[in-house]
Amino acid sequence: MTTPSRPRLSGTVRVVGTGLLGASIGLALSGRGIDVVLHDASPGQQALAVDYGAGRAAAAGDAPALIIVCVPPDVVAETVAAELAAHPDAVVTDVASVKLEPVEELRRRGVDIVRYIGSHPLAGRERGGAISARADLFRARPWVICRDEETPGWALALVEDLALDLGAVPIEMTPEEHDRSVALVSHLPQIVASALASRLVDAPDTALALAGNGLRDTTRIAASSPELWVQILSSNAAPVVAELDALIAELGTVADALRDVGAAGARRTVAEEIASGNAGVARLPGKHGQDRRFEQLVVLVDDRPGQLGRLLSDMGEINVNMEDLRLEHSPGAQLGLAEISVLPEALPRAVEDLAARGWQIASV
Amino acid sequence: MTTPSRPRLSGTVRVVGTGLLGASIGLALSGRGIDVVLHDASPGQQALAVDYGAGRAAAAGDAPALIIVCVPPDVVAETVAAELAAHPDAVVTDVASVKLEPVEELRRRGVDIVRYIGSHPLAGRERGGAISARADLFRARPWVICRDEETPGWALALVEDLALDLGAVPIEMTPEEHDRSVALVSHLPQIVASALASRLVDAPDTALALAGNGLRDTTRIAASSPELWVQILSSNAAPVVAELDALIAELGTVADALRDVGAAGARRTVAEEIASGNAGVARLPGKHGQDRRFEQLVVLVDDRPGQLGRLLSDMGEINVNMEDLRLEHSPGAQLGLAEISVLPEALPRAVEDLAARGWQIASV
Repeated sequence: MTTPSRPRLSGTVRVVGTGLLGASIGLALSGRGIDVVLHDASPGQQALAVDYGAGRAAAAGDAPALIIVCVPPDVVAETVAAELAAHPDAVVTDVASVKLEPVEELRRRGVDIVRYIGSHPLAGRERGGAISARADLFRARPWVICRDEETPGWALALVEDLALDLGAVPIEMTPEEHDRSVALVSHLPQIVASALASRLVDAPDTALALAGNGLRDTTRIAASSPELWVQILSSNAAPVVAELDALIAELGTVADALRDVGAAGARRTVAEEIASGNAGVARLPGKHGQDRRFEQLVVLVDDRPGQLGRLLSDMGEINVNMEDLRLEHSPGAQLGLAEISVLPEALPRAVEDLAARGWQIASV
Repeated sequence: MTTPSRPRLSGTVRVVGTGLLGASIGLALSGRGIDVVLHDASPGQQALAVDYGAGRAAAAGDAPALIIVCVPPDVVAETVAAELAAHPDAVVTDVASVKLEPVEELRRRGVDIVRYIGSHPLAGRERGGAISARADLFRARPWVICRDEETPGWALALVEDLALDLGAVPIEMTPEEHDRSVALVSHLPQIVASALASRLVDAPDTALALAGNGLRDTTRIAASSPELWVQILSSNAAPVVAELDALIAELGTVADALRDVGAAGARRTVAEEIASGNAGVARLPGKHGQDRRFEQLVVLVDDRPGQLGRLLSDMGEINVNMEDLRLEHSPGAQLGLAEISVLPEALPRAVEDLAARGWQIASV
């Protein structure tokens, strides 16, 4: 890994709320030598983040230039208001995934929001908490920044520097534009994945035994937290309902065509829906799922204690470091598939040396 | 890996249709020393499969004991009928993804189907054609076999041997049970992914720029072929419509709750839908990170090659089997986290023995 350039931010950065996002921000900024102070309403959560290396515990006398509010959606506005009041010289931003409601709530409270700039890093993981924090969580991810006409340029620059120091890509949008966009690309997929997964609750085991990667991928985000998502969806209800109604109408068209599949044009309707999906998915930037910084190789391992250990010992002996590893365990099968992520330059040697040691590479 | 055992199949196997599935079957069986003859209506497609090593070109005088029909859904029945007639001593199976319609069509044609056993390997790739063939395509995947009461045991055994020689897991089902199952776990996800992706066709670029892995995963299979899927969905219309109607109703409930999110019980309805999705996705076998049948322990490992290998070697020596493993590698942190899933009864010993060997358990 190349050594990162000097950080753009200087002075003290205060992170309020040390869950996944707050701890990941602290981990990344601390790693770049920035003074990060952490505060969480839960002392245990805060202590965990400090132990994990995300920063030092907040103390009286801290004079942060920038404050990042990383708390649950329903307490963002009140927390931002409190931080603005407690730190009269600081710029305050938040990372909530809905942007119009917090600013409207602050206006309702009569808060002067000149020093508040809402933002939203499009990054996350299925599991939350500081224990899941990653310094590279925001790398190459979009970071939406919502300024308004009153926002001074120097304040905007601070939030842009934060995004850039975290390796993210700053994108300016209005709160309304942001909320409509995430309703489509984030909130609608969440509801669809959850509804699809909920159809599995009462399904027979024999049906689930036939599940493949298609179902796994379409339902993966259904594992997300109900507490968090009820807040997100409720805060962005109108744009989400508009997207949901349009999707329901489209699904209804397909259902009606299949209901009378012998009718003229029925098959064409179904084919056009699949073709339209081809066109839509083709518009998505980037490669599916996988982290583009790494290459994956899949190695077959016997489902016996120690087998995977021997594989990874071999990885160590051939001196190839793993960036990530997943074990796919198929029910009833005598084999597991180990998907190993390595740096692209290490892939050819890893494949060659592992094959030389008798491992079967399922795919590269 | 241990070298594969002797194949169960003997004699000549005939593969009709040398696309992805046919060519992959040919590659795997040929690789195990079985005599495979290939036939495809397209001479070019057949020659490609032969060049690819999937078998030899079919010739007069071939006397196959088993015939595998790997043609598009709409020509399965007529192809099976032709193969049964041309090879009076052979057992004929197919790999079509719908199982009731072909057998009904054969009955309508008055074909004696004692020697026909429908089957369906749950395996595939986004890209088709012999050029995408892989000998390991079926390894550890379910292979549904649909017998009826007339099916002789020796004929059933041939198809089971085929699945086992390909490394697949044979599962017996009735055609009705199979079609209902795939309507839920395969056909419904396809329609949902296609409809969701089609919402992106007219979306602004600024919205698509915010797309993350959630949207990528939920829409990945929307890249599937319209020609193939209109056939599959049309052949399984009734079970698919039933699943689709149920999903639409569920999405409508969420939309109505969000339409009047201030109303009593509205947020609860939304939260319960997300929670129900949690429960559904947790039922997926081998679903990474979601399997509630297992307990997780998190072990701290230095971010150095070989460390994880030593940990897993220790897991083997203390004779604890891993059901799943996930490595959390954070470039910003000095340590990685290995999340290991084990059977609940094995957890206490795993924790105790690993601690005794000097490993730090981060959380249980």
